[in-house]
Amino acid sequence: MLGFASNATIDVLAQLGVLILLFQVGLESTVRDMVKVGLPSVTVAVLGVVTPFALGWSVGALLMPEHSRYAHAFLGATLTATSVGITARVLGDLGKSRSAEARVILGAAVVDDVLGLVILAIVGGTIRAADLGQRMAFGAVAGILVKAVVFLGGALTLGVVVSPRMFWLASRLRGRGVLLATALVFCFALSYLASAIGLAPIVGAYAAGLILEDVHWRDFTERGEHQLEELIEPVATLLVPVFFVLMGLRVELAAFARPDILGLAAALTLAAVLGKQACSLGAFGGLDRLSVGIGMIPRGEVGLIFAGIGLTLTLGGERIVDPGVFSAVVIMVIVTTMATPPLLKWSLSRGSRGESSGESARR
Amino acid sequence: MLGFASNATIDVLAQLGVLILLFQVGLESTVRDMVKVGLPSVTVAVLGVVTPFALGWSVGALLMPEHSRYAHAFLGATLTATSVGITARVLGDLGKSRSAEARVILGAAVVDDVLGLVILAIVGGTIRAADLGQRMAFGAVAGILVKAVVFLGGALTLGVVVSPRMFWLASRLRGRGVLLATALVFCFALSYLASAIGLAPIVGAYAAGLILEDVHWRDFTERGEHQLEELIEPVATLLVPVFFVLMGLRVELAAFARPDILGLAAALTLAAVLGKQACSLGAFGGLDRLSVGIGMIPRGEVGLIFAGIGLTLTLGGERIVDPGVFSAVVIMVIVTTMATPPLLKWSLSRGSRGESSGESARR
Repeated sequence: MLGFASNATIDVLAQLGVLILLFQVGLESTVRDMVKVGLPSVTVAVLGVVTPFALGWSVGALLMPEHSRYAHAFLGATLTATSVGITARVLGDLGKSRSAEARVILGAAVVDDVLGLVILAIVGGTIRAADLGQRMAFGAVAGILVKAVVFLGGALTLGVVVSPRMFWLASRLRGRGVLLATALVFCFALSYLASAIGLAPIVGAYAAGLILEDVHWRDFTERGEHQLEELIEPVATLLVPVFFVLMGLRVELAAFARPDILGLAAALTLAAVLGKQACSLGAFGGLDRLSVGIGMIPRGEVGLIFAGIGLTLTLGGERIVDPGVFSAVVIMVIVTTMATPPLLKWSLSRGSRGESSGESARR
Repeated sequence: MLGFASNATIDVLAQLGVLILLFQVGLESTVRDMVKVGLPSVTVAVLGVVTPFALGWSVGALLMPEHSRYAHAFLGATLTATSVGITARVLGDLGKSRSAEARVILGAAVVDDVLGLVILAIVGGTIRAADLGQRMAFGAVAGILVKAVVFLGGALTLGVVVSPRMFWLASRLRGRGVLLATALVFCFALSYLASAIGLAPIVGAYAAGLILEDVHWRDFTERGEHQLEELIEPVATLLVPVFFVLMGLRVELAAFARPDILGLAAALTLAAVLGKQACSLGAFGGLDRLSVGIGMIPRGEVGLIFAGIGLTLTLGGERIVDPGVFSAVVIMVIVTTMATPPLLKWSLSRGSRGESSGESARR
């Protein structure tokens, strides 16, 4: 089994799988959605990124004093990203997809994804710079922040102009698979660009997904072709599981018997849950704060992706995320993802506060 | 550009692409279709495999006397496979998809694919054995033939029993992507099995495609899911072009200026065209023989796949297919594929023989 964990073929497919996964996550929302996001979503997202980051960093500093502060910062970064797919499904099952809480959570998730990717860029970039002997200077951090913001800002503003024209041009080409091929080229091109300027390729894949919108390929769907989401799904079915299996292979089962790792996992899980409860402070305007906070708990795939990137970063020969820490992060991801549905059902069913607050918040 | 031609990532994706491609080719027909194939199709297929094989071998022996007879035999093998996709499209465009000629050609193509894969197995296996110092003994060739026949026979008979049960079991699993995942597991499992017993993995992928039939996943389509063919198409859109681009990268552009390579390409093309005209001798019963022969001309992807495999085979350190010979094969594939549509249109439009012979052959 160890052979598989370092097999080049598996690695290539898993890396492609992560790009496709983030592209899919991005496709679920549009730049327009992001611009229209309400103030409650923004405050929820910002608090829900800053607090877990600080808490995760503190957990690292307290429980892993032997690791560098870069490793502590990275641990904080893995706690920032929310993966609200599971929350969206629970809300849908309970018929609350259109409640005010749902809109705030889903809006916050978009902002959260972007902020998480920016933090990953800063922490990852700083670690890479430090590994080359540069100090964690304010200037370097600011430089990476500027790069990430310029990349995302530039990609999103240029993208919404370029994308409709690109698909219009592509729609002149008859033949099978043109829509999917064009979209994949766009996704891989932005991933490459992100990687070329020193950001994680997933930043580009996510930006590509955000930019693309159904209306851009109306020329294709009007002549009876499938929607892009339907076309990307089979590609994801092939590639995405390879990523999850690879992450699973990299977990050391022995770690589950080590008290220090289990303790770290418990502390991380607590930091993740409490950190996202800080979100509720941002959910003003009569919203069901507890439900918003619980809805933001799951870390899911994005936490795994961050941890997987950490496995590949080194600082002076020391791995930023070692297999033990990685296993603790995986436990945290599993617990937060599995605990959310029952917690959310419980919090939404306390009286019928969900509905009434939903009404009052619809201003 | 040379970097790409030996890049591990590209190679992994191209190899997966070939498996998906052959799986798709197999999906176009079923084991039942193959069993029901009429005698004219079988005689057309056998003549259309044996004659090009012999002609290709002779071209090799005449024009490349410095290469071993193994290389000559391999050259013959690359001429055997017919890729009737382009023929099917031309017949469809002319509204002749249901003519007797079309049925014979499409039936022959299935038999032809199987025979071509068996020949590839024998020639490839013999070369591998010879490279290990064994002589091209009758026993060894017979052994590989038996292995290929047992594998195909076993896979096809067991497969049609196992496949419906496998999909029935899988249909109990709710969740996204189950149909595609089950089909891909089946395809990759048979490819692995073929490779494990020393056959080319594509033999397994093709067999898997032949075995699977729409009725096997009725449980999925009845609840509104897409057909497997629709699900596999986006996967092919991503992976198959990588294979074609890789084959293109491996062509030496300088070869187009070498008279010996151009001469070899011309001789191979002639052998390919004349060899398939021998098919027409098998098309008895009032069929339009010329059209059947022309319809069998294109070599397409299967010829490329065979040549690509040849690039990886060595005998005593000498490559079985060197870049020059590979380029000649690619030229032959391009010419036979591009020449077929106009030739077929011309031959089918000579009077209205197509229809009348179609009537007389419908016995």
